Amino acid sequence: MTDLSTEPAPDLAAVLAHIDAHRDAHLQRLMDYLRHPSISAHDIGIREVAGLLVEMLERLGMEAEAVPTAGHPMVLGRRSDVAGAPTVLLYGHYDVQPPDPLEAWVSPPFEPTIRDGRIYARGAGDNKGQHFAQLLALEAHLAVHGRLPCNVIVLLEGEEEIGSPQIAQFVRDHADRLRADLVVTADGPLHPSGRAVLSLGVRGMVGFDLVVRTGRTDAHSGNHGGLMPNAIWTLVHLLATMKTPDGRITIEGLHDPIRPPSNAERAAAESLPVDIPGYLAEMGLVRLDAPEGRAFHDRLMFHPTLTINGLHGGYGGPGSKTVLPCAAVAKCDVRLVPDMTPDQVLDCVRAHVARHAPEVEVIGRGGMLPSRTPIDSPYTAVVADALRLARGEAPLVVPSFGGSLPDYVFTQILGVPAFVTPYANADEANHAPNENLSIELFHAGIRSGAALLSRLGGMRTEG
Amino acid sequence: MTDLSTEPAPDLAAVLAHIDAHRDAHLQRLMDYLRHPSISAHDIGIREVAGLLVEMLERLGMEAEAVPTAGHPMVLGRRSDVAGAPTVLLYGHYDVQPPDPLEAWVSPPFEPTIRDGRIYARGAGDNKGQHFAQLLALEAHLAVHGRLPCNVIVLLEGEEEIGSPQIAQFVRDHADRLRADLVVTADGPLHPSGRAVLSLGVRGMVGFDLVVRTGRTDAHSGNHGGLMPNAIWTLVHLLATMKTPDGRITIEGLHDPIRPPSNAERAAAESLPVDIPGYLAEMGLVRLDAPEGRAFHDRLMFHPTLTINGLHGGYGGPGSKTVLPCAAVAKCDVRLVPDMTPDQVLDCVRAHVARHAPEVEVIGRGGMLPSRTPIDSPYTAVVADALRLARGEAPLVVPSFGGSLPDYVFTQILGVPAFVTPYANADEANHAPNENLSIELFHAGIRSGAALLSRLGGMRTEG
Repeated sequence: MTDLSTEPAPDLAAVLAHIDAHRDAHLQRLMDYLRHPSISAHDIGIREVAGLLVEMLERLGMEAEAVPTAGHPMVLGRRSDVAGAPTVLLYGHYDVQPPDPLEAWVSPPFEPTIRDGRIYARGAGDNKGQHFAQLLALEAHLAVHGRLPCNVIVLLEGEEEIGSPQIAQFVRDHADRLRADLVVTADGPLHPSGRAVLSLGVRGMVGFDLVVRTGRTDAHSGNHGGLMPNAIWTLVHLLATMKTPDGRITIEGLHDPIRPPSNAERAAAESLPVDIPGYLAEMGLVRLDAPEGRAFHDRLMFHPTLTINGLHGGYGGPGSKTVLPCAAVAKCDVRLVPDMTPDQVLDCVRAHVARHAPEVEVIGRGGMLPSRTPIDSPYTAVVADALRLARGEAPLVVPSFGGSLPDYVFTQILGVPAFVTPYANADEANHAPNENLSIELFHAGIRSGAALLSRLGGMRTEG
Repeated sequence: MTDLSTEPAPDLAAVLAHIDAHRDAHLQRLMDYLRHPSISAHDIGIREVAGLLVEMLERLGMEAEAVPTAGHPMVLGRRSDVAGAPTVLLYGHYDVQPPDPLEAWVSPPFEPTIRDGRIYARGAGDNKGQHFAQLLALEAHLAVHGRLPCNVIVLLEGEEEIGSPQIAQFVRDHADRLRADLVVTADGPLHPSGRAVLSLGVRGMVGFDLVVRTGRTDAHSGNHGGLMPNAIWTLVHLLATMKTPDGRITIEGLHDPIRPPSNAERAAAESLPVDIPGYLAEMGLVRLDAPEGRAFHDRLMFHPTLTINGLHGGYGGPGSKTVLPCAAVAKCDVRLVPDMTPDQVLDCVRAHVARHAPEVEVIGRGGMLPSRTPIDSPYTAVVADALRLARGEAPLVVPSFGGSLPDYVFTQILGVPAFVTPYANADEANHAPNENLSIELFHAGIRSGAALLSRLGGMRTEG
């Protein structure tokens, strides 16, 4: 089914030519889109931008709707042009991070500005520039051929930046309208080398706080030191039972559900480029985290982590204060690999804490399942080949990102393979001041989206 | 040498009667004194109050002087009336803590106010009310007998509340002017039961910060979790090597210089009242600190502590933030028992950290030697008996307080026995809003000071 010719077929070549001929107009339209704030955390502009997107989907001949949820609306569109062709669900999110600190922006976050071949604006990379490229790819196919080569569902969320609190329920409630053969998300950055990336999974995540209070108030460390238990020592000793200095998580049962990576996943991970000195220099590190000897990519893909996000208790000001603290809190997260679940991990943590420090309270903070699309899915090669056709170079196939996205709603709730094909530059500065998107990569994203539709159009599903 | 009669000798009885006859005047004069702020941390009123004290010492017929130091002046007075009698150095401090939070005071901190038999003012208990009682005791002896029964040096410091940074150098520089047979400090509170206390020592103290930075910036716990070392984990694992969950400090060499308490000290500690349920209830605890089974008073007197005063790193706000922290700081103090020293402890800490976590920086914060006057000093029984004569009940003899005061400048630099005889109520609220001193205990303090002078007057030194 995979066509490994280096030249696009004529129908795609015409669409790519159309895209190349409309670079300026596409750029201007992205700039217009980025001018509209849509900050989910502050509920600014969300409904206005959802409305703009519904209009745009309707202009693409889609049945489109801003579907209400208990939170912000989901923008949903559908167009079914080819019976028997696969249906691809294109996921993205139209909300953006808050832009503060404003004073750190060279140009205002909602006044898109071009400098050095990049568009600077909040949302340029994360995620407006990327899902807008997908929509322009649909438009280009329609402009050239009058129809899409496969069936398309567009789902644009308005709460991704606040943790996607509604998406699981939404996907459960609307599973019939979301029935697709695969999900493709354009989000995140290319490899730092500039190579395209095709990612098949994400780690899951669960957060929890460890909270302890040993006494009514902080006390004088001389008058009470030796008598009153110290809340920070309680947390230090508890945490030290949860992970060894050489990097083994020692919470009983935590690893039990882990499914070892397949040979294909291992091989894919091993074939990824590694530049440890470059990574250390970039992050200002002198060594990688424990355990020693673990392969670079395995660390992010195939192993859970237990991160202390913060630990605070007692005096933290200048100089010293000889206080014996009565209260301390450690905020932690665990990144999950298949088939760990947030509930399973929280159960293990609670049981561990009950055994080792029953006076410590565990406050679960919810989480997200991991997601992993099998590398031997029939769509893996097709999506990879579309990227190759659009960009002239095969993508790096990444079995899993280290971070967490709610892809499980597609792989585990809808039960379909899900792929992430990032379009942004590695230094897009998402979630930070001066977020930006390379203009070249924006155009390459439109081309990639177009190639994806074309390649899928060449397939026929069994149904 | 100890006279255990229950009645004071006639010369003391006359002085005590004089004191009782001047209760109102003494109280008014204390109120006047408390009206003068002398906040060392803010350098407010220090020189004015030093001047008032020099005038007062001169009115007591002393050679008196505000001796300049690199910090605030030391008020020093001397009167030698009886050749061959002991010389007592009465130490106190005329500086006070800052009064904030001002809004928490029922009456303003420098407008002394009487409510329910107590004087409310900053410095009422700590330490103006107590050293002023000592000075009024001198005055009473002079008024009744025209001379003091022993030789007296008064030393009033202006920087006790900011850690006595000059006193060690001052004592070294002026050792000849400070040559005494014993030092008596009236500071701190009586036992919560109301029993008088005679304390013979304090623990020393040394502070240090453990500072670690593992990377240039905090990172995303998903994208970097497994790759980048976590600064908080580094501190947790280091700290866990420094003290076991069952309360043993495991820093090599730290305990080496510890001199076991004498049998007399052990016996004194064992004879002190213990109310563990009362202590737990007062402090809101469910148990004493590890190790289990250690005697209540031994914990404060005969063992060092390693207290984490504060640990801070990473996210500490509401909810969660999945950050991987690049920096963390633990502030710690160690309370020292004889013959540990701050330098010895810091050396052990540095060596331990170098072995277990060389990437962690140790920042020493200076400290204070412990001080312990032998319980079999010839003055122990005399000072105890003076308290008994003035108060009608023998004091509790406490081998050491848990806290730290610079008493080592007397016991270790001057080489003389030092005693602390608190005059304030246990709930004096020193260092806190609504600091107060019981009026009855203020008068009892003057009587105690007078009895001390009398009892010392009955002794003859070998010199």
